[in-house]
Amino acid sequence: MSIEQVKELIGGEVFGVWFLIGAALVFWMQAGFAMCETGFTRAKNAGNIIMKNLMDFCIGTVTFVLLGFGLFLGEDALFGLIGLPNFDIFTNYAGFDWSNFVFNLVFCATTATIVSGSMAERTRFISYCVYSAVISAVIYPIEAHWTWGGGFLAQMGFHDFAGSNCIHMVGGICAFIGAAMLGPRIGKYEKDKNGKITKVNAFPGHNLPLAALGVFILWLGWYGFNGAAATTVEQLGAIFVTTTIAPAIATVVCMIFTWIKYGKPDVSMCLNASLAGLVAITAPCDVVDALGATIIGAVAGLLVVFGVWFNDYVTRVDDPVGAVAVHMINGIWGTIAVGLFATNTAPTYSLADKNGAELLGLFYGGGFKLLGIQFIGMFATAAWTAVTIFITFYIIKKTLGLRASAEEEITGLDITEHGLPSAYSGFAINDMSGMMEVNENTNLGESEYDKASDIQKDTAVKVVKETNIVQGVFADTGMHKVVVIAKLARFDALKKALNDLGVTGMTVTQVMGCGIQKGAGEYYRGVELDATLLPKIKVEVIVSAIPVEKVIETVKKALYTGHIGDGKIFVYNVSKVVKVRTGEEDYEALQDVE
Amino acid sequence: MSIEQVKELIGGEVFGVWFLIGAALVFWMQAGFAMCETGFTRAKNAGNIIMKNLMDFCIGTVTFVLLGFGLFLGEDALFGLIGLPNFDIFTNYAGFDWSNFVFNLVFCATTATIVSGSMAERTRFISYCVYSAVISAVIYPIEAHWTWGGGFLAQMGFHDFAGSNCIHMVGGICAFIGAAMLGPRIGKYEKDKNGKITKVNAFPGHNLPLAALGVFILWLGWYGFNGAAATTVEQLGAIFVTTTIAPAIATVVCMIFTWIKYGKPDVSMCLNASLAGLVAITAPCDVVDALGATIIGAVAGLLVVFGVWFNDYVTRVDDPVGAVAVHMINGIWGTIAVGLFATNTAPTYSLADKNGAELLGLFYGGGFKLLGIQFIGMFATAAWTAVTIFITFYIIKKTLGLRASAEEEITGLDITEHGLPSAYSGFAINDMSGMMEVNENTNLGESEYDKASDIQKDTAVKVVKETNIVQGVFADTGMHKVVVIAKLARFDALKKALNDLGVTGMTVTQVMGCGIQKGAGEYYRGVELDATLLPKIKVEVIVSAIPVEKVIETVKKALYTGHIGDGKIFVYNVSKVVKVRTGEEDYEALQDVE
Amino acid sequence: MSIEQVKELIGGEVFGVWFLIGAALVFWMQAGFAMCETGFTRAKNAGNIIMKNLMDFCIGTVTFVLLGFGLFLGEDALFGLIGLPNFDIFTNYAGFDWSNFVFNLVFCATTATIVSGSMAERTRFISYCVYSAVISAVIYPIEAHWTWGGGFLAQMGFHDFAGSNCIHMVGGICAFIGAAMLGPRIGKYEKDKNGKITKVNAFPGHNLPLAALGVFILWLGWYGFNGAAATTVEQLGAIFVTTTIAPAIATVVCMIFTWIKYGKPDVSMCLNASLAGLVAITAPCDVVDALGATIIGAVAGLLVVFGVWFNDYVTRVDDPVGAVAVHMINGIWGTIAVGLFATNTAPTYSLADKNGAELLGLFYGGGFKLLGIQFIGMFATAAWTAVTIFITFYIIKKTLGLRASAEEEITGLDITEHGLPSAYSGFAINDMSGMMEVNENTNLGESEYDKASDIQKDTAVKVVKETNIVQGVFADTGMHKVVVIAKLARFDALKKALNDLGVTGMTVTQVMGCGIQKGAGEYYRGVELDATLLPKIKVEVIVSAIPVEKVIETVKKALYTGHIGDGKIFVYNVSKVVKVRTGEEDYEALQDVE
Repeated sequence: MSIEQVKELIGGEVFGVWFLIGAALVFWMQAGFAMCETGFTRAKNAGNIIMKNLMDFCIGTVTFVLLGFGLFLGEDALFGLIGLPNFDIFTNYAGFDWSNFVFNLVFCATTATIVSGSMAERTRFISYCVYSAVISAVIYPIEAHWTWGGGFLAQMGFHDFAGSNCIHMVGGICAFIGAAMLGPRIGKYEKDKNGKITKVNAFPGHNLPLAALGVFILWLGWYGFNGAAATTVEQLGAIFVTTTIAPAIATVVCMIFTWIKYGKPDVSMCLNASLAGLVAITAPCDVVDALGATIIGAVAGLLVVFGVWFNDYVTRVDDPVGAVAVHMINGIWGTIAVGLFATNTAPTYSLADKNGAELLGLFYGGGFKLLGIQFIGMFATAAWTAVTIFITFYIIKKTLGLRASAEEEITGLDITEHGLPSAYSGFAINDMSGMMEVNENTNLGESEYDKASDIQKDTAVKVVKETNIVQGVFADTGMHKVVVIAKLARFDALKKALNDLGVTGMTVTQVMGCGIQKGAGEYYRGVELDATLLPKIKVEVIVSAIPVEKVIETVKKALYTGHIGDGKIFVYNVSKVVKVRTGEEDYEALQDVE
Repeated sequence: MSIEQVKELIGGEVFGVWFLIGAALVFWMQAGFAMCETGFTRAKNAGNIIMKNLMDFCIGTVTFVLLGFGLFLGEDALFGLIGLPNFDIFTNYAGFDWSNFVFNLVFCATTATIVSGSMAERTRFISYCVYSAVISAVIYPIEAHWTWGGGFLAQMGFHDFAGSNCIHMVGGICAFIGAAMLGPRIGKYEKDKNGKITKVNAFPGHNLPLAALGVFILWLGWYGFNGAAATTVEQLGAIFVTTTIAPAIATVVCMIFTWIKYGKPDVSMCLNASLAGLVAITAPCDVVDALGATIIGAVAGLLVVFGVWFNDYVTRVDDPVGAVAVHMINGIWGTIAVGLFATNTAPTYSLADKNGAELLGLFYGGGFKLLGIQFIGMFATAAWTAVTIFITFYIIKKTLGLRASAEEEITGLDITEHGLPSAYSGFAINDMSGMMEVNENTNLGESEYDKASDIQKDTAVKVVKETNIVQGVFADTGMHKVVVIAKLARFDALKKALNDLGVTGMTVTQVMGCGIQKGAGEYYRGVELDATLLPKIKVEVIVSAIPVEKVIETVKKALYTGHIGDGKIFVYNVSKVVKVRTGEEDYEALQDVE
Repeated sequence: MSIEQVKELIGGEVFGVWFLIGAALVFWMQAGFAMCETGFTRAKNAGNIIMKNLMDFCIGTVTFVLLGFGLFLGEDALFGLIGLPNFDIFTNYAGFDWSNFVFNLVFCATTATIVSGSMAERTRFISYCVYSAVISAVIYPIEAHWTWGGGFLAQMGFHDFAGSNCIHMVGGICAFIGAAMLGPRIGKYEKDKNGKITKVNAFPGHNLPLAALGVFILWLGWYGFNGAAATTVEQLGAIFVTTTIAPAIATVVCMIFTWIKYGKPDVSMCLNASLAGLVAITAPCDVVDALGATIIGAVAGLLVVFGVWFNDYVTRVDDPVGAVAVHMINGIWGTIAVGLFATNTAPTYSLADKNGAELLGLFYGGGFKLLGIQFIGMFATAAWTAVTIFITFYIIKKTLGLRASAEEEITGLDITEHGLPSAYSGFAINDMSGMMEVNENTNLGESEYDKASDIQKDTAVKVVKETNIVQGVFADTGMHKVVVIAKLARFDALKKALNDLGVTGMTVTQVMGCGIQKGAGEYYRGVELDATLLPKIKVEVIVSAIPVEKVIETVKKALYTGHIGDGKIFVYNVSKVVKVRTGEEDYEALQDVE
């Protein structure tokens, strides 16, 4: 045997196994996405996000088996537009390309899972299942066929080694369009009376260590993501170099930039920046050198900050985890970067047009040819994705409905979609982040308040009040302590209402309301849950200048949803108060209590 | 050199390294089990479960070195029943089979770790160490020898590629018998006066994102678990296909089934279903095709739901994490499935009886022969496991005791077994899940209450009471606010007692009781812990029709354990109350306060 | 081709890929360190620790590219003291040794990341970035050159296969010196008036499951760490054996030892012990047999307990995660262990002096020669490290400052360094661990209290008081309930002050103070955060013998920092109290209330 034959045999076997190890690492990225998205959102939706990340892989497997794999890698048809679907996996198992199937399945699942992040905390679960299936069955396989299945972009010389374009940009576009069609989470933007947005609110993630773990998982997985298709040790080594340098530089640049711009280095943004660097280096990882990777990373580190800002302040698309900034914007950047930085000093370099002429990046002497091809590939893929995902979401919106109801969203999708009281059972959760624009879409039956009868109102919100003449000796001093016990979900509305009334201070405690109640009809692992312990909020305010009746009315209105148990109000007389410093008495002393 | 020789050299080297990578992935599954079991149980036992999962591997290593490895892979003796123990690892290190040792050690540890889940939250730690050692030293090695060490099942043609039978079913049987002998966690089942179970309670896991991470870790590790012993790239690719399809299908089927059955798709059950699919495909992963894997997975997805229900409602065995449903039931299913679906379209298929005649599954034209062998192997292994583990548990029960005391269980095993106040120091933990059957085994010295002297009672539970004649002007109105400060662990008993008395509402707050106390004698990393901050529960109730003395007596009884600091009771006069709606006064108005 | 040539080709390819897989596993250890350090410290610093672990890798990449890699593996110069820096990575990319670069980068990053643990919870972030860069750029590369880059220790026959010496001891020494120069965390040690330490306090980690996950991640990564440089399957198998046995034994020994010494098996110490065993086996993993690994592990399991105790009680260096005990002490032990246990029964054994004479361990017939070389190598490396890191920290201390201010430390580094209100947004955090020595460095402007005017004092801490003559009928009973609402960070000072005054009991609740306030100038992902919800602590005490004015004065002093909003005090009359048991009235009854 010749040395070349031996080498080929060795390479086939070694990289055959590595290909599968790489696929396992890409599977592992599912865990990274799950942890990352969970950590960056709120605790009340944690179970829902976990479920979505689990199901997109599982549902994706079903649809990829049935349709996607054929569309992707089946025999080229329609002039390079699609592959022909087939059922070889069932009918010709002995001759099936097992490794390739697994490898492409895990890549496909990555595309689908990106979307869940930007649409987190407000999407109906059933709708998620549907669009996730469509992405895995149709949208991804067809555009992937163009680049990786021998389709027209492949024939043209378009280069996307591991998926900045075919996976991340595609996932990111779906994420962007989905989040835009869904609208922002309740409370994300505050509006004035003309509907103009006056303020953007932050909803800090509930578990940043978990999110960070997700980023580390993704980074590890990325060595498989970018490296799995390598065919020589040199090429794999070089891919590891670029895949390490780009995210590291991106993170450092982002740290410095946020430090300068916002005064302090932002943890969650830096975590995003690592991912941004990884996304950007994905397409060019095998064709750029260390310098190229450095520049690509540095730009990615800035782009991610820009992208998050752009969505918050310009497009007003609410993207809880930064999926658009990370995957869409940097997916585009990575795809274009191939046309700028591709260099034949990279080992086993082979970019060539259909005539076999070597293609190089603009900055490495290749002129605009490769860059042009990259733009064409990117636009073609983007257009296909935008159109098909828009149609998908539009149909879902008109049929199943994309968005959970406002009450479901405020209560949290864990309990409303999955009957899970909390993904953190036993922890005291105090999630009162963000002010809500009460007059916008938080209006849970509040308009009904005016229509309700007194009996309805009083049944919903009970009032217990110490009478003014109770002490026999002295009358109402005009000062009252009002204690309100209400549902956690109504806290923001209550606070806003009290603030509007002029109440400037309050003390808030989380308590558990407790009573004998019938099961709530929720099941955990097949066992019905008792609803005997409900997290409530206890708000204490002291008022004097503001008439207590007005406070009561305001509170009742804010809490009213028309159900028994909306809340309770206790009113106490405060007989007399002095401020030790000044000797002021009565309500003068109370003006700024607390 | 001939091409075959070269290929053999290559294969030896490539799969030699892959074999060890696979072993590392199987080691990684220890982390998966640890996270999964921790997440599915309650916060107060998190440190204990972590510790158990860490120690079963470490103790298992010791016993596997000393005894297990020899029994497993030593020279076949006693007609294929055991291997002969030896100390080659110490005496003949240069000639030792290092890779095989590591590989089999991590598989062995998997078997042992399965058990900790079903027995979680109530097993003594010392007893855990003992039975875990016995499994690694004797129970697993001997039955594994039968199938994988050249024992009598191997000679018969029994097939269990990666351990549905030898590992998962064995671990699952130990889990089932252990949980059964241990009895359910306090509060899991409510009984009526005749001891008949009237209600099953759910104890939701305290950290589902962590549990989900555990499932993802396990799934990743499973590619090593099922794939490590592959010898060709084709075989490995096919194993990856079946190992992906089965759990994905299982999860989808489980999601749909729970959605239909319980009204909502159950998150934690779907996480279990992924594992169920993986367990079921473990034995047949190398001998079935995609269709077989699909059916195996679909059945697994149903079996896991059935198994959890069956334990909750039929056997009444309390299995906190679903280990029995996942590992025992699906381990059996996977073992049998080989006999149903084995097909020679799988690459490098080689199932044959001792005469070399090819064996095929029932549905693939092989008749009942292979199926029969699978049943024999499964029953033989199951019988061995059931008998030996029963003896092990029985001896432990009679000597060390299997179960922690009721007080330890309610307080949590972290502090009682490891001196760890909380695995989540600094978080407010509010774990009041589940009603307890007060008259069953929660009776912590309560029967002693009646025997105690008044001084003993009052020392244990202090009462502070505003006198009725305090205001000089008016007398007792008959309405009282009773505030109770008690240990967290007594909350359920207290609530039950008050409910039984007719108190229908209460407000509960978690507070920290605080005072100068001597160290509690607990050590954290060698440093004695201050016990100055104790989590307590503050319960407020307002009563009028119910005599306050009765309330006090009830509370005292519920809180009494005979120690100073059992609780404190404050009684306040409520002078007068009106309901604003109706004008009702006094206790009529109070009937449904809160 | 000869069989040797074929084998060489195979080995090159197989171990070329494995080398990179190993590097990926070592990268993964970054996640392990991050989770481990986060879990073992307090919630208020979780984001900061995450950030540090992310940035040391990213900054390390930058400096290793620019300087470190050349110093490490550049052409040997100055008689084996350094390598010559070069920019081949940019200037000669086609001929660059990609794999080696990645491999050494991830090892370098490990060294840097060890330090963050011991210096956690009190180091300025900017200072961290600087010293982390110095370690990666200079300190590590130069000493690593001595052993692994062909430097003078390599030439001498010094053996450190994977870095007990060059990585763990070096990181551990930096950790020790850094923690020593930084001083202990506030509250770690209590002193009497002469400054003598009277008590060591434990700060339990806030998330042990996460820490345990970190340990599992590290253990998994260690198979790559120790195994990556293997060149035959046999050697790799043997490395896996020793790398498994040593930590398992260490953990078992530690469990037994803590069980005996502290009465209960300590979870967090056992987690440390696993790491200690791994560190100790790192240098000798390829040259010892199973017995050697067992002894090395057993000693490591004891050393880690000793090391933690030694720092707590002898050196008084506060090391929150045990980095010194794990990495420094066991790094030294592992390095020396080579000289004790090296045996040529290990596969592909090749330890030899510069003349090619085989070197063996003391206990395996090699005399003191190898042991002597190991000591020389260890001391040389330790001396270099100690001197250079001391200079580094010294310069930082004199310029940027090493330590965060006391207020920043008490408040937590998340908010003060990164503007992150909490890494666990929405969770109720109740972190009141540890008493603080109020007269030491917790004195946040308290000395200013005496200088402040009455108006300044009253503005800072408001007092609201029910007048004594309020009821018209009866006068001050002399009994008062004092309710204090204060910042969480002041709780310890407050408690200490009240205790000193003679107040023996209190009830503490976490509440949220709430009002309309301007943004705090903190940004989360570029969005300004509302500071409307501030975690506060509500402390309730009842006093009678102690004059209420004294209590007020004490509280004001304890809370005073000179800012508006330091706290509020409410004083209520308690008209009369009886103890039901004794009939005692008034303040006699109150002596031991709560």
